[in-house]
Amino acid sequence: MAKKQIEPGTKPLICTPLVGTTKELIFEQLQQVLSKRPDVIEWRADFFQDIANTDAVVAIAKQIQALCGDAPLIFTIRSQFEGGQPIALSDAEVIELDAAICKAAAAEYVDCELRNDLQRINKLRQAASQSGTKIIGSFHNFHQTPSRADIVNKLAEAAEKQLDVAKVAVMPQTLEDVLTLLSATLEAKSRLSIPLITMSMGKYGMVSRMIGGVFGTSLTFAVGAQASAPGQVPIEELRTVLQTVENTMGN
Amino acid sequence: MAKKQIEPGTKPLICTPLVGTTKELIFEQLQQVLSKRPDVIEWRADFFQDIANTDAVVAIAKQIQALCGDAPLIFTIRSQFEGGQPIALSDAEVIELDAAICKAAAAEYVDCELRNDLQRINKLRQAASQSGTKIIGSFHNFHQTPSRADIVNKLAEAAEKQLDVAKVAVMPQTLEDVLTLLSATLEAKSRLSIPLITMSMGKYGMVSRMIGGVFGTSLTFAVGAQASAPGQVPIEELRTVLQTVENTMGN
Repeated sequence: MAKKQIEPGTKPLICTPLVGTTKELIFEQLQQVLSKRPDVIEWRADFFQDIANTDAVVAIAKQIQALCGDAPLIFTIRSQFEGGQPIALSDAEVIELDAAICKAAAAEYVDCELRNDLQRINKLRQAASQSGTKIIGSFHNFHQTPSRADIVNKLAEAAEKQLDVAKVAVMPQTLEDVLTLLSATLEAKSRLSIPLITMSMGKYGMVSRMIGGVFGTSLTFAVGAQASAPGQVPIEELRTVLQTVENTMGN
Repeated sequence: MAKKQIEPGTKPLICTPLVGTTKELIFEQLQQVLSKRPDVIEWRADFFQDIANTDAVVAIAKQIQALCGDAPLIFTIRSQFEGGQPIALSDAEVIELDAAICKAAAAEYVDCELRNDLQRINKLRQAASQSGTKIIGSFHNFHQTPSRADIVNKLAEAAEKQLDVAKVAVMPQTLEDVLTLLSATLEAKSRLSIPLITMSMGKYGMVSRMIGGVFGTSLTFAVGAQASAPGQVPIEELRTVLQTVENTMGN
């Protein structure tokens, strides 16, 4: 089945995360989540307790992928440094695992934190290009919102490193910070040709998950079974809001 | 029945406009609109063809008011200068009519454009204070969005002129203009104690009608029977969006 693609300039896709710690819990969540028809599934593999077992991880990713219909799978190991779970793998080992996922074509998208050095990122790009897997270059700040210019630069960095999608998720300390994230997204959209994923997190940032598509995000996260970050809205409610926005914008 | 009040810091009230040209059409619209349970009704009397007949206008306002249950009535004559219909009344005559509405207590709120000179505004304030009618000091720009500072100053002007509510409605030329309006609202909210009504109009501004409450608007306009300004969302859809925002903000 042809998978949906994260593309610029369209109604944002809704992505729901899987955050189970065991294979059983992951597939339990997947069943719950699929019944809510998300556009994209993200497996947050840093929650998986057996993450050091590459074969097991690849096998699970392939099984998730096979069950997802037209919803592409994003494979993500979020580092503890950027808000993920503590895991036994080093940054280098994470990239090795990402590359194994690419080689097995076990996900349509693989998340790669932009803080990785260029050599590692290029190694992953090579593995990805062979299988057609796309790489999301990501940056997260769970404490604050950088300046507008810094956010734009982070998104541009993903394009400069020849990655396929640029993602920035930041925490607002004020409502003004939410506007900064939206404004930066708008600016990046006018300058970059790759699709963007941006969001302002937490209670204040919640509105960015609802109306961010208007300002240039191509994907927004919603809760299917269990939230992976603060401020995520239940998928049913988010879908209704996005439909209202689309109706009124006349897209 | 106790009427709802436009107050700062709460979930925004939903207001639907009446724009009928005849008494029959006005009450037809009112029936349609009331079935959708708006929080507030605005009678845009500049659409009414017999507006020069003060007695008729006051009588209709009182009838509308009586049918509105707990929804307060805003009586508004929007000048052609600020995007309203062409009418035979001069600015001075408009204030006379506003004052007649106040004296008859035929509306809970009367809209008064801030461009009126202070003498006229004070005259209206006197009439209003006797009946307890509240005055909304308003500014509209259907062509563009002023700077953030100018928008804040317009809202502050309503407070300085001792009016009860401050309203600014402006047209965005870019999506950045929508963020400017939201940012100005946030700033004004932190500086002023009177309730604010702000919106960015048109297709781009539509999102401000949905999430403006988070940034400080106490009222948002929605279509009940017929829109009175570009970008208004149908009331049923807007209510669902506001409920989602409220659920997630945990108010």
